[in-house]
Amino acid sequence: MEKGKVLLALTGFHPQHWRELLAAEREVVLEPDGPTDPSIAYAVVWKQKPNLLSRLPNLRAIFSIGAGVDHIFADPGLPDVPIVRVVADNLTQHMTEYVVWRVLDHHRQSMLYRAQQQKKIWRELPQRPAEDISVGIMGLGNLGRAAASVLLSLGFAINGWSRNERPMKGVSTYAGEAGLIPFLNATDILVVLLPLTPNTQGIINYGVLKELRRRNGLGGAVLINAGRGRLQKDADILRALTDGTLKEASLDVFEVEPLPKTSPLWSHPKVFVTPHAAATSDPTHLVPIMLRQMDAFERGEKLENLVDREAGY
Amino acid sequence: MEKGKVLLALTGFHPQHWRELLAAEREVVLEPDGPTDPSIAYAVVWKQKPNLLSRLPNLRAIFSIGAGVDHIFADPGLPDVPIVRVVADNLTQHMTEYVVWRVLDHHRQSMLYRAQQQKKIWRELPQRPAEDISVGIMGLGNLGRAAASVLLSLGFAINGWSRNERPMKGVSTYAGEAGLIPFLNATDILVVLLPLTPNTQGIINYGVLKELRRRNGLGGAVLINAGRGRLQKDADILRALTDGTLKEASLDVFEVEPLPKTSPLWSHPKVFVTPHAAATSDPTHLVPIMLRQMDAFERGEKLENLVDREAGY
Repeated sequence: MEKGKVLLALTGFHPQHWRELLAAEREVVLEPDGPTDPSIAYAVVWKQKPNLLSRLPNLRAIFSIGAGVDHIFADPGLPDVPIVRVVADNLTQHMTEYVVWRVLDHHRQSMLYRAQQQKKIWRELPQRPAEDISVGIMGLGNLGRAAASVLLSLGFAINGWSRNERPMKGVSTYAGEAGLIPFLNATDILVVLLPLTPNTQGIINYGVLKELRRRNGLGGAVLINAGRGRLQKDADILRALTDGTLKEASLDVFEVEPLPKTSPLWSHPKVFVTPHAAATSDPTHLVPIMLRQMDAFERGEKLENLVDREAGY
Repeated sequence: MEKGKVLLALTGFHPQHWRELLAAEREVVLEPDGPTDPSIAYAVVWKQKPNLLSRLPNLRAIFSIGAGVDHIFADPGLPDVPIVRVVADNLTQHMTEYVVWRVLDHHRQSMLYRAQQQKKIWRELPQRPAEDISVGIMGLGNLGRAAASVLLSLGFAINGWSRNERPMKGVSTYAGEAGLIPFLNATDILVVLLPLTPNTQGIINYGVLKELRRRNGLGGAVLINAGRGRLQKDADILRALTDGTLKEASLDVFEVEPLPKTSPLWSHPKVFVTPHAAATSDPTHLVPIMLRQMDAFERGEKLENLVDREAGY
């Protein structure tokens, strides 16, 4: 199979660096040539424009530059070709850092210690050992499992929830509808790493947060969302923070991004906001992986990390 | 050997819980009976009053309730009996949590993201991968090694410095006077876990901080001191923060504790202050360990984790 041409269709990313790295090995274009363009074999995308890919009759595969692929399914004219999800050690490591960082920051009471520092108060706060705290991870794929293993080494008790049973050594796993409430009832710190699908959209709502474990001395559960903003209901999180269902939250993603200046989450004293920065797609790490997969595909090998259209991720 | 009586001599700790737990198995007193008290076999201490222990002619051993023993050597009338340093998984785990928490908090730029959140600024900051960052740990005992292993699993490059060469897999180790400058020159984030001895007092001074690596894009080194306050010169840290030698610092210990309200460290925007809370001695974990050692000693076994008086720790 000859070396296919690549369409680079990114929204919200500067294409320059991606283009340079791809162009080192393949012809790259930013727009199809005409209403239909038979010359394009691959599309490297992030939030591609609707009905753009349907103009490529000879498209062989679509590559998402992020771990999530929900942005791809938003396209009504999505052609029926294989979709490759990026899986990179670099991305996994950054997400693990974010999750461990946020879990420790809540566990070690940084918000209370910062408040004491502002008032120049020297007072040690009671500190629970990690083994008394259950971190519940929603989504046990590459990202969830990597974070779980470091949290286990720190001594935390780990629960995991996924659509289908995903056993993991040292982790209490729960699956599907039936497992959700028991999973939440046993969780003090909820970490959300789910893919966004029709089944998971809005799953982090008040009813779900209400099921999290609340114990004396811990004063409310903690929410950490590093998955997708539309997994959560921003208003429900605020309600849960207000009535004490939630003690604190670390949010990297939001229903609308960038988070509007009018959102009360920006200034809520119990919320730590980051601008969808938990784990960024770095072209220097990801482009070589994509180019390797295109080469392998053209040698007749199978594409890796294919998206299950049925499941939506 | 009969079951020896225990003197509990704590300064800055409420003795109540310690006393109850010790009294479950042994007779416990808070004061010697008279100018000399031949009835006391063991002293469980924290900053004992000077010349208190010299009044105990039949003292068999001194137990420190903290990992550090510098407070014991401050006593001019310290009798020449074995000194036992507490080594507890619980203490080690809490210190590992603190070190990993603080390293990630600086690495993931929490101070800059908090400042952006206050201004409602949605802007992703450039993020270096962990493998580009060298964490240098001063002190490679139980605490240093435990922290190093978790930081290694997160992908950080780890340097270690100790008085004598202490090899560790995956860690670039340096030792003694000759190794100090090379160690500092290769370190971006300095973690101090040294014991306080005549050799280490004031070791964290401006000259030493000046040797830390400063690289483009990282903007100054980071200091994390979870060891002892008198290892550092508070004024030198402030100077280093002011002239950019240090970018940020996390300090759990200070030359004078509690940190005086007049200290500029309290309100310095680049300093995170905790009140000597990195790893607290928890009697529920430590008393059983001490009681086991007393029983073993009375069965004729050797005491574990003895302090080297020569080295001072």
